[in-house]
Amino acid sequence: MKKIILASDSFKGTMDATTICNIMERVAHRHFPLCEILKIPVADGGEGTVACFLTAMPGTLVQVKVKGPYFEEVDAFYGLLQDGKTAIIEMAAAASLALAKDRRDPSKTSTFGVGELILHAIKGGATQLLIGLGGSCTNDGGCGALAAIGVKFFDARETAFVPTGATLSEIRRIDVAATESLLDGIQVTILTDVENPLFGETGAAHIFAPQKGADTAMVAALDAGLRHFSTLILRTCNLDIANCPGAGAAGGMGAGLCAFLGAEIRSGIDTLLEVTQFEQKLVGCDMVFTGEGRIDAQSVQGKVVSGIAKKAAEQGVPVCAVVGGIGEGVTPLYDLGVSAIFSINQKPLPFSVAKLQSEANLRKTFGNILRLIAAVSK
Amino acid sequence: MKKIILASDSFKGTMDATTICNIMERVAHRHFPLCEILKIPVADGGEGTVACFLTAMPGTLVQVKVKGPYFEEVDAFYGLLQDGKTAIIEMAAAASLALAKDRRDPSKTSTFGVGELILHAIKGGATQLLIGLGGSCTNDGGCGALAAIGVKFFDARETAFVPTGATLSEIRRIDVAATESLLDGIQVTILTDVENPLFGETGAAHIFAPQKGADTAMVAALDAGLRHFSTLILRTCNLDIANCPGAGAAGGMGAGLCAFLGAEIRSGIDTLLEVTQFEQKLVGCDMVFTGEGRIDAQSVQGKVVSGIAKKAAEQGVPVCAVVGGIGEGVTPLYDLGVSAIFSINQKPLPFSVAKLQSEANLRKTFGNILRLIAAVSK
Repeated sequence: MKKIILASDSFKGTMDATTICNIMERVAHRHFPLCEILKIPVADGGEGTVACFLTAMPGTLVQVKVKGPYFEEVDAFYGLLQDGKTAIIEMAAAASLALAKDRRDPSKTSTFGVGELILHAIKGGATQLLIGLGGSCTNDGGCGALAAIGVKFFDARETAFVPTGATLSEIRRIDVAATESLLDGIQVTILTDVENPLFGETGAAHIFAPQKGADTAMVAALDAGLRHFSTLILRTCNLDIANCPGAGAAGGMGAGLCAFLGAEIRSGIDTLLEVTQFEQKLVGCDMVFTGEGRIDAQSVQGKVVSGIAKKAAEQGVPVCAVVGGIGEGVTPLYDLGVSAIFSINQKPLPFSVAKLQSEANLRKTFGNILRLIAAVSK
Repeated sequence: MKKIILASDSFKGTMDATTICNIMERVAHRHFPLCEILKIPVADGGEGTVACFLTAMPGTLVQVKVKGPYFEEVDAFYGLLQDGKTAIIEMAAAASLALAKDRRDPSKTSTFGVGELILHAIKGGATQLLIGLGGSCTNDGGCGALAAIGVKFFDARETAFVPTGATLSEIRRIDVAATESLLDGIQVTILTDVENPLFGETGAAHIFAPQKGADTAMVAALDAGLRHFSTLILRTCNLDIANCPGAGAAGGMGAGLCAFLGAEIRSGIDTLLEVTQFEQKLVGCDMVFTGEGRIDAQSVQGKVVSGIAKKAAEQGVPVCAVVGGIGEGVTPLYDLGVSAIFSINQKPLPFSVAKLQSEANLRKTFGNILRLIAAVSK
């Protein structure tokens, strides 16, 4: 093989996508030392999204001190691609559950720092912002981030404040005048695979707030706050965002960014494949290696393996999937363009044990796949 | 691929070698409909040995009614290859643990029926006998089988009798006169991977009799009987068989056949590869697929995968192993000629669950291997 692409998703709970692609790269280099190896670790918008893009495309990691979820100072970052125009921001850099440490309280946490990253990128010349939503500890509808870039939130006494989950319901008026010139010519894309609406039984508070530390009463209050926020969005922007799929991503940040930054919500993989010029990279490629933690019937509907396979099939490039586990119903994937699927499990072991060996198992399995290819290619 | 060889060992406890090769054949036929597929399921001398040879070589299954382990009538069989000269006998056909049913008592069971099979084959014209030892319920040193072909065993009162485990110590004299002309020109090869001596701590009784139903006292008595038998062999044949590796196979049948039939003890795989003309079959072969239940450092010393790989490597034919589990220390196998090793495990599951899915897992894994080969060969 002269050229291959490594485009694996993460194996949830065991290895992130960048780690997987790096392991594959080392193995591939050993078996095919002269092969050109392109890595496109699959970003889903969550933690590691910036690393994925910067692995796939030349660019720099911009480090910025911003406010964390409790307005404490944190060391955050975003990625700026070599064109100087495209910034990749993952909200987890400034508002992750990990940053909340033992104070998981989505009524108090803020996305303010995410807004600081956005502002920094725009002031630095970025005009295309890709903002990954995922892994957040917040439920503020993105108001913190919006406040950081200049959106004003006023309460009943016409006092400007930075709303959090608990105080969304205190907003009476929103003023976007200060951000209009800032956002002129700026294109914002949200990367998320979440499709939940803003509020209600399948909304941000009910589905995601419990894992961020909310009890039943708090979930109800947060849900009411988001519902209130949606009426203000309707009034301020003339936009009925509530039931837009993805509005409920990241504690309602999806809704806030769509409404006030004109953001478009897209799946991580589609954007990644476009921004990283996957189709161009496929030219002359001998094989694409992809993967995910578990491949099954859902993967057929899913976007990562099937998305990669479809594009590769258009150019006649075979796709080999290396996965943590193979479930039922994968046959349709072969029709979509997946040539073969291999599980990394070396022997029959329960997941609790197998996951501890996942890096070694990936290394061994991928090595054997490449050995087989080498034997057949001789 | 235009020609492949399927030469898998059994996956102990889940699938026998013939089943595995048949599954692989169906899968291979689906992916490479025009490919010539040769099957050589690996026989180890135990149950299924005849089926393995008759899968690999043209021949007929000869069905014979003989005495079972308790001298009851059983339907037994052996294989006769197309040359009319080579007979494959597995002793399990007439003296298996399964035939002993709930009467596991190696002091009383007999290999008499195995001798009847031998006799039938010789009278039918066979001059080369391959006798697989394994899976037996006996500990009679092969005396039953020898009696069936005409060897006479006399007790202290010069009465001829058929010794069993319990009565080996009653033998005073052995007379082989009646078998001499019968065995003239007959070549006997024992197939076994057992290397235990006839008696003592690592002998037939101590190591194998407990699983055949012997308690501690019986083991001691059986061991004494085999020890006594070895002195008679020394006296009758002038052969010190006791410490010959494999003398203790199948309740001492190894010793009995070596001594009185001039049998040579060989590993199943070596004989199989020779008799089935593996080297000739390798000519023009694109790939050999082998496998075993568990591949690990012992497989490097072992005879199946490494034996197949060495012969294939001599002719530059790549070998792919498909196995139940991959342990540590397999790297040297690559140097021996194994191109790649794949485990059939589709997802992380304990063996107790995984083994129930082994046929489906083999089918899926082998299918993906062939899909990958097809993709690379395009």
